[in-house]
Amino acid sequence: MVVGSVALDSVETPFGKMDDLLGGSAVHFSLAASLYSSVGVVGVVGEDFPAGAVELLRAREIDLDGLQRMPGETFRWGGRYGYDLNHRETLFTHLNVFEQFEPAIPDGYRITPFLFLGNIDPQLQSGVLEQVRKPRIVAGDTMNYWIDGKKSDLMAVISRLDILLLNDAEARQLADEPNLIKAARAIVDFGPECVVVKKGEHGAMMVTREGFFFAPPFPLETVIDPTGAGDSFAGGFMGYLSRCGEIGESELRNAVIHGTVVASFCVEDFGTRRVAGLTVDDIASRVDAFSTLTNCGLSSSFRRWS
Amino acid sequence: MVVGSVALDSVETPFGKMDDLLGGSAVHFSLAASLYSSVGVVGVVGEDFPAGAVELLRAREIDLDGLQRMPGETFRWGGRYGYDLNHRETLFTHLNVFEQFEPAIPDGYRITPFLFLGNIDPQLQSGVLEQVRKPRIVAGDTMNYWIDGKKSDLMAVISRLDILLLNDAEARQLADEPNLIKAARAIVDFGPECVVVKKGEHGAMMVTREGFFFAPPFPLETVIDPTGAGDSFAGGFMGYLSRCGEIGESELRNAVIHGTVVASFCVEDFGTRRVAGLTVDDIASRVDAFSTLTNCGLSSSFRRWS
Repeated sequence: MVVGSVALDSVETPFGKMDDLLGGSAVHFSLAASLYSSVGVVGVVGEDFPAGAVELLRAREIDLDGLQRMPGETFRWGGRYGYDLNHRETLFTHLNVFEQFEPAIPDGYRITPFLFLGNIDPQLQSGVLEQVRKPRIVAGDTMNYWIDGKKSDLMAVISRLDILLLNDAEARQLADEPNLIKAARAIVDFGPECVVVKKGEHGAMMVTREGFFFAPPFPLETVIDPTGAGDSFAGGFMGYLSRCGEIGESELRNAVIHGTVVASFCVEDFGTRRVAGLTVDDIASRVDAFSTLTNCGLSSSFRRWS
Repeated sequence: MVVGSVALDSVETPFGKMDDLLGGSAVHFSLAASLYSSVGVVGVVGEDFPAGAVELLRAREIDLDGLQRMPGETFRWGGRYGYDLNHRETLFTHLNVFEQFEPAIPDGYRITPFLFLGNIDPQLQSGVLEQVRKPRIVAGDTMNYWIDGKKSDLMAVISRLDILLLNDAEARQLADEPNLIKAARAIVDFGPECVVVKKGEHGAMMVTREGFFFAPPFPLETVIDPTGAGDSFAGGFMGYLSRCGEIGESELRNAVIHGTVVASFCVEDFGTRRVAGLTVDDIASRVDAFSTLTNCGLSSSFRRWS
């Protein structure tokens, strides 16, 4: 189950400008996770939410019982990316029906083993936790806006998470620590057993009580639109975990690879276009290619030179 | 053999301010490489170059026959690093005797198997290549200043290199391509068989005709001064290669790990302090720790979930 935003995005990148793209954290997460498991979405849309978008999600067997439809317009976000796609500028944020969003968990979702709390008001994230029985794994995301404005509410949610996913700037800000390694370790002390730091084109880093893990980026020559990469990562990551029996260090590390791979597809086209058409085989072939990216065939004779 | 700058640096970081630190590309490179091989330095210093600095290099059995001493002052550079140490501002550059530097290769160095052309005027880099018999491996470094001002001279040198090392911003600028993967591939087409892109706290990426390799950063909680990290990387990288018999993909990948590890020590203290006291055992223990950073114990049962 995912609780998060459902949006219509307007995106400008050096490769073009697109309006009314299906987006939002719950959408990107659920499309990714649906390649691994059945997923239910809790979110809200307005009267203008297109029937085609509903069909696209249903085609992936994503359960929409938790998707409320309210009078008014769907949440709209507009952003522009610069030359190297690493920096983005928000052009507008029209919360619309999302402003009154009160997550209501359908009865059928109260026993959910894997829960992802997308980037929404931390008070709403806490409210969701009150409505479900303790899931096996609760993961969450956040953003600078909540770190700035609702730090204590956010810290209360974070203390209840098993896994926190955030980007490198957010990790530094949350821990108030410029060194990313120290910042990630500090966040583990806030409660989560596992902190995943997404670093965009530089890959991802995970810290657990067992230590650090680094996943390189998947080397892409075509990056069209980074919107939704973080939520696609989370969907691949949680989707993979949902297929595991016991979850330990090795499963978490493999989940980071799966998150990276799904995110690598997401950015290859605008909005949800690439992930909506993705297959299990597509993912498997990039996961297979992954091992060559860091393997240096260390033999004992080369590891030490004297 | 290394040709490059020998400098006295003034560095300000959030951790303090130090003047007259021994620095320069030839210094950082040679101290690192001396842990693997005998190294000769070609550079220039002024009358003010401290005897202690000469002793420090000699203690590492670094050959200084190619180190000219000229009337005037040694090259001085001053820089300041910001909050997260990722960005630096140059406060001053006093070329002094370095302005008239004409690399003169001592007769004893003309047959040198491994040559590193530190970041100097590309015309001087070419001049060095005229003075040596074809070495086994020629590697070089450059910077934005030469990409901006001497592009055609620089391209002429690059076409003669086996290996080019540069940072990510320089790679984008040199290839005039925002996508780092495309940029690195484009640079391989300029001539070098191997391009190593140093990404600071994000690790390093190498591209050869065989594909991409990513080395994670060594996770450091203490970063005091990034000055010299790139040249220390090059020293560890070339030093490692100098110990190899045949040099292929696996040796190059291991060399990237060694470069990363030596650079990780460099940044733990101001100037050359940490690397000057480094031992082979220090390096070996971080190289050993490296394999745990990317190993996710991929077993066939976990790689694919259906």
